[in-house]
Amino acid sequence: MADKKFVEQITSRDEDFAQWYTDIVKKAELMDYSSVKGFMVIKPAGYAIWENIQQELDKRFKASGVENVYMPLLIPESLLKKEAEHVEGFAPEVAWVTQGGLEPLQERLCIRPTSETLFCDFYANDVQSYRDLPRVYNQWCSVVRWEKETRPFLRSREFLWQEGHTVHATAEEAQERTIEMLNIYADFCEEFLAIPVIKGQKTDKEKFAGAVATYTIEALMHDGKALQSGTSHNFGDGFAKAYGVTFTDKDNTLKPVHQTSWGVSTRLIGGLIMVHGDDSGLVLPPRVAPTQVMVIPIAVHKEGVMEKAQELKARLAARFRTKLDDSEKSPGFKFAEAEMRGIPVRVEIGPKDIEAGRAVLVRRDTREKIEVALDNIEDEVGALLDRMQSEMLERARAHRDEHTSYARNYEEFKDAIENHPGFVKAMWCGDRACEDKIKEELAATSRCIPFEQEQIGETCVCCGRPAKKMLYWGRAY
Amino acid sequence: MADKKFVEQITSRDEDFAQWYTDIVKKAELMDYSSVKGFMVIKPAGYAIWENIQQELDKRFKASGVENVYMPLLIPESLLKKEAEHVEGFAPEVAWVTQGGLEPLQERLCIRPTSETLFCDFYANDVQSYRDLPRVYNQWCSVVRWEKETRPFLRSREFLWQEGHTVHATAEEAQERTIEMLNIYADFCEEFLAIPVIKGQKTDKEKFAGAVATYTIEALMHDGKALQSGTSHNFGDGFAKAYGVTFTDKDNTLKPVHQTSWGVSTRLIGGLIMVHGDDSGLVLPPRVAPTQVMVIPIAVHKEGVMEKAQELKARLAARFRTKLDDSEKSPGFKFAEAEMRGIPVRVEIGPKDIEAGRAVLVRRDTREKIEVALDNIEDEVGALLDRMQSEMLERARAHRDEHTSYARNYEEFKDAIENHPGFVKAMWCGDRACEDKIKEELAATSRCIPFEQEQIGETCVCCGRPAKKMLYWGRAY
Repeated sequence: MADKKFVEQITSRDEDFAQWYTDIVKKAELMDYSSVKGFMVIKPAGYAIWENIQQELDKRFKASGVENVYMPLLIPESLLKKEAEHVEGFAPEVAWVTQGGLEPLQERLCIRPTSETLFCDFYANDVQSYRDLPRVYNQWCSVVRWEKETRPFLRSREFLWQEGHTVHATAEEAQERTIEMLNIYADFCEEFLAIPVIKGQKTDKEKFAGAVATYTIEALMHDGKALQSGTSHNFGDGFAKAYGVTFTDKDNTLKPVHQTSWGVSTRLIGGLIMVHGDDSGLVLPPRVAPTQVMVIPIAVHKEGVMEKAQELKARLAARFRTKLDDSEKSPGFKFAEAEMRGIPVRVEIGPKDIEAGRAVLVRRDTREKIEVALDNIEDEVGALLDRMQSEMLERARAHRDEHTSYARNYEEFKDAIENHPGFVKAMWCGDRACEDKIKEELAATSRCIPFEQEQIGETCVCCGRPAKKMLYWGRAY
Repeated sequence: MADKKFVEQITSRDEDFAQWYTDIVKKAELMDYSSVKGFMVIKPAGYAIWENIQQELDKRFKASGVENVYMPLLIPESLLKKEAEHVEGFAPEVAWVTQGGLEPLQERLCIRPTSETLFCDFYANDVQSYRDLPRVYNQWCSVVRWEKETRPFLRSREFLWQEGHTVHATAEEAQERTIEMLNIYADFCEEFLAIPVIKGQKTDKEKFAGAVATYTIEALMHDGKALQSGTSHNFGDGFAKAYGVTFTDKDNTLKPVHQTSWGVSTRLIGGLIMVHGDDSGLVLPPRVAPTQVMVIPIAVHKEGVMEKAQELKARLAARFRTKLDDSEKSPGFKFAEAEMRGIPVRVEIGPKDIEAGRAVLVRRDTREKIEVALDNIEDEVGALLDRMQSEMLERARAHRDEHTSYARNYEEFKDAIENHPGFVKAMWCGDRACEDKIKEELAATSRCIPFEQEQIGETCVCCGRPAKKMLYWGRAY
């Protein structure tokens, strides 16, 4: 009975994408709801994905010179308020602590919605001289933003993330670091999560509160909506001036530092689900999958089957994250469970297979079945995992390209947004009023000014005035 | 100038232990104070120690079947209050969130001081049948307790920790898990941190709010004060009954689960400092040291020195966490810096060494200098690190044993506590009144009822009535 939940039909992805998503997060046991609205429990299957994301990203960060630190959870109201745009952006959505122990606090403290202010406060003392620069620090933590509408992993009142905060002697170096981190995110998404992304800059309307420039990686979900998957901000010296983060340069003059920040969050788990999942559940790219191979014995009552399955599990576990399902459930149940959890490859082994010295590999994404000899099964599984990883990326890229339209005028733009879910590439005059109008009328937003510009036309898709840039537009999570 | 801080004299450990400790946490750049009292910034050198602790403990946890999860940061007041003893223990020291975004909250939410209540709330829905048991979950997170007196790493209003929370079908299994985790902690402290610990049970006075039994590992610091370094609690079915965590057993009856919880925190970093540190700074056991080997070139202006140092660094880095100090500071500065940071082995290499095909290894704890041939320097360094790890444990054990007294009556007890800082072993009647009296009169507390009991006498060291148990006593952090 308890296992039944795995094999119950889930909502069809094409019928009701939102309900399909909710079914998956629950039935693949990624999360559960908690007693506080918008706060979730991340269950072992979900947290293990996050651990793999952390481990891989952290390795890439450290290779680029990042050091990890930990900043306080709470921010005094007066500290939050020092940078005007920043406080305006975040104050409406923070949680306030007003009592500590039995005493009311003299000053309210907010739970960090992000930690720019704390890093600035720290760097103001920590950095004195050009010799102290750069500082390239990052922290892994949770943050709280009091969102009105919440959805597991995509928008929640608390989420896990990493936030990097760096200080540099020059504007050039800060800009380089901003782009370096964006590139790390993009490579990570493509190579590890098999999620292709568009790299670009946010418009002023969409940039981070207090940033000079915000860069983003934008991914396209299966339903044609965009997901902002990571951002990297160049703050210039605005925060430095507001918080007094200065250093004595080689020329013996006092200068403000130049800062960056950059982050990705558990939102990436939502992206994994919505890019790769299907009507049987989650589909995980092999590199991020907590369990890469599930060995399922067939006809376990037959002599020698379980022993052979155990032996096979031990062999495969030496090279891959492998589990053996030796429970008393039927093979059909086990197949459905492994599919719901998105395990990339299942290995079926029964009496006939053993006799023939083979096993059957079943690939989660395509359901392709491959008979392989037991002798070199490790190499076969390794090759299959590699193939699956790269084909999942290519499939996601093809899906994105098929769901990317060009619009030369407002009619085409409206038609694309309303009838062809996906990215729309269109020219833009650079005026916020056009973004506002498009958001108002079509519920679409500018996703980014892509680094790879194309000349689609001469005029703004909205107002018809001369165009300055090509933008990606779309409806988004 | 900026580097000068490393080599300034720090307070002598024997002169003013508290000031010495404060000097080390600052000058070894482990932490910094923040704008909110009792909340600290953990700097890269401190956080890297915590990362190594996490990685090693997490490996040991997973090998024993633990799965990681993440629970919400906030607890509704009504949920906190369900278990009477627990709320009484924690309510006076929690931070309360009363406003989310622009709206006052209908119910106050506290920042988790610990997450028993959240895990119970989760398990109440998650666990239905004996087939769902056991659940052996853990989370790595930060918690907040509004302490009045705070000291970096030892007692702060926010700290990082892990908290494991398990549910079991039987009391026996819960008790086994409680002890299993205590043993993992004890082995970890001895094998990885070179900190010997006493394993035992807390008295009822000292046990965790809501636990049936609390087990502890107690370490002795250099100044003779005890540090409770990790605890493991058996909750019986008390929380299960209060929170309705029940399951249908094989006999088809509904039963409450049996629960455990266990945790260690960044306090362990305080323990590392106070067990191993000396008047030149931190001394880190090789296994936990973020940098194990520092290569320092001598007379870098001489041709070929820097190249050889770089080559040596590359060779050693293949086997050990190795850095090269190629800054422009003088060798003396570099030695002092590496010592302050507690780096286990420094490798000095200068023109004469190069000519003779050798280098000089200097061991941080004993200052022993060893000339070794460059040919097999990796093996020499490896052997030295191993020797240092085991000798640091033995030295700490010898120090603890030398600072452990026996007391057969109150006079001896008073003399030991007041004049011979360290553990005091003494018999106890089992009555809380004696613990209260000793705390009141001597500022000492019962540390634990050790698993290894000795028969020191027949009567309680405090009241003279028949004794039931031998206890470890001491003044503590």
